[in-house]
Amino acid sequence: QITAGIDVGSVATKVVMLVGEEIKYLIKPTGWSPRDAGVKAYDELLEQVGCSPKDVNCRVGTGYGRVSLSFIDKAVTEIHCHARGAAYLIGKGGLVVDIGGQDSKAILINQKGKVLDFTMNDKCAAGTGRFLQVIATALGVDVSELADLAVGRNPLEINSMCTVFAESEVISLLAKGEDKRDIIAGIHRSVARRVWSMASRFGPVEQVIFTGGVAQNKDMQDKLTQASGCPVVVPEFSQVAGALGAALYARDIIS
Amino acid sequence: QITAGIDVGSVATKVVMLVGEEIKYLIKPTGWSPRDAGVKAYDELLEQVGCSPKDVNCRVGTGYGRVSLSFIDKAVTEIHCHARGAAYLIGKGGLVVDIGGQDSKAILINQKGKVLDFTMNDKCAAGTGRFLQVIATALGVDVSELADLAVGRNPLEINSMCTVFAESEVISLLAKGEDKRDIIAGIHRSVARRVWSMASRFGPVEQVIFTGGVAQNKDMQDKLTQASGCPVVVPEFSQVAGALGAALYARDIIS
Ligand code: SF4
Repeated sequence: QITAGIDVGSVATKVVMLVGEEIKYLIKPTGWSPRDAGVKAYDELLEQVGCSPKDVNCRVGTGYGRVSLSFIDKAVTEIHCHARGAAYLIGKGGLVVDIGGQDSKAILINQKGKVLDFTMNDKCAAGTGRFLQVIATALGVDVSELADLAVGRNPLEINSMCTVFAESEVISLLAKGEDKRDIIAGIHRSVARRVWSMASRFGPVEQVIFTGGVAQNKDMQDKLTQASGCPVVVPEFSQVAGALGAALYARDIIS
Repeated sequence: QITAGIDVGSVATKVVMLVGEEIKYLIKPTGWSPRDAGVKAYDELLEQVGCSPKDVNCRVGTGYGRVSLSFIDKAVTEIHCHARGAAYLIGKGGLVVDIGGQDSKAILINQKGKVLDFTMNDKCAAGTGRFLQVIATALGVDVSELADLAVGRNPLEINSMCTVFAESEVISLLAKGEDKRDIIAGIHRSVARRVWSMASRFGPVEQVIFTGGVAQNKDMQDKLTQASGCPVVVPEFSQVAGALGAALYARDIIS
């Protein structure tokens, strides 16, 4: 039995296929067209898994681009899919903190992945992956390099919460001769604090389940641990938690 | 009798000298050093007016950089100086809406320029001149060209309130073939709405006294009129209202 979850986010499109209990996945940039991104990523994963469209028993779409997917059987909101995916990965309930490319969410879930409460920010670029992108560009480094550069460094205080003002602040810190790596550590701390200021109304918790693209950044994991004062876990497949949740919903539909 | 007001803002430094009832002024970019900017702008205006430092009877500093000015006799907050300057220019009380390079303020004043109430935003670049700067750069035009390009055009709907997300939205509108001028008109409307959403708690009012650098933009004047539903006046010298207020406070000190 095969089910698929397609999570078309504003930055990245994630597809998961559940082949029995095995998780197969693929991540692609969304680009200009959410529809094309969804179709292409799905086709590519089909090929990788080595099956044809008719082998897939059910498909659930999620993410902001889910409305433009015509090949899915059902659409489910991101919050529900994230919750479901995270609970599956961790085997228990808790607080999911998801930092994606253009938004961040905090979702309190029970062991079955039911949403008990949630809050999210998709209005302000601060506290999202976009903030890191803007700062990385200003520093002339790639987002993927941020974690290695920042680990073990001395975080500088970043006063501006706003992405635009923080970018200027970073440029002026560079001009003052501050070390790029200390600036990045400071930026990570600032993102972690901002996200935790949103999520803390659900805390303290036994553990924070950190998901989304930004959760792959090891220094962000440390900074979120410090900001929250709670243990932070990043389960395997955490960057595709939403798509996994969608694939699990697809499995419910046919069972 | 000569008094001076020096308003060191984050983007522009404004100096006003009150020579009797005559208003002399000068506007310079602040650059990296607020102290240097204040000193240089003051010296340059002294030269233009044709007097020496000892001819000036009193100096009041304002703006975020006022703390770094050592040659002033007193420092007064921006809010009080703006209120005082605006009341002097308009000859009566009302609601002052100031949109500067990195902040925006709404100040309810009485006829003497006393502050009855106020609110301000200096945390978020949206609804400030900085937003216009970011968008102008994305469109490849100078901020000074925005007004002429937008006047009489059909404003497009801009969905993102955040500067960073709006910048992406603008780039995607351009890619879709939308006219740059309609985009700018839409951006102006978006700034006006955002600022009015902050100022409207003091409205409706008989008139809005529009000050700050952005008030020089004629299309912004129209858009603020539409957003507020109130008559908008932009008195002469409105871009130096804060420095003028400081010079008026200086006159109080010696009288
Ligand atoms: S604070 Fe900055 S990043 Fe946040 S909404 Fe405002 S402009 Fe955007």
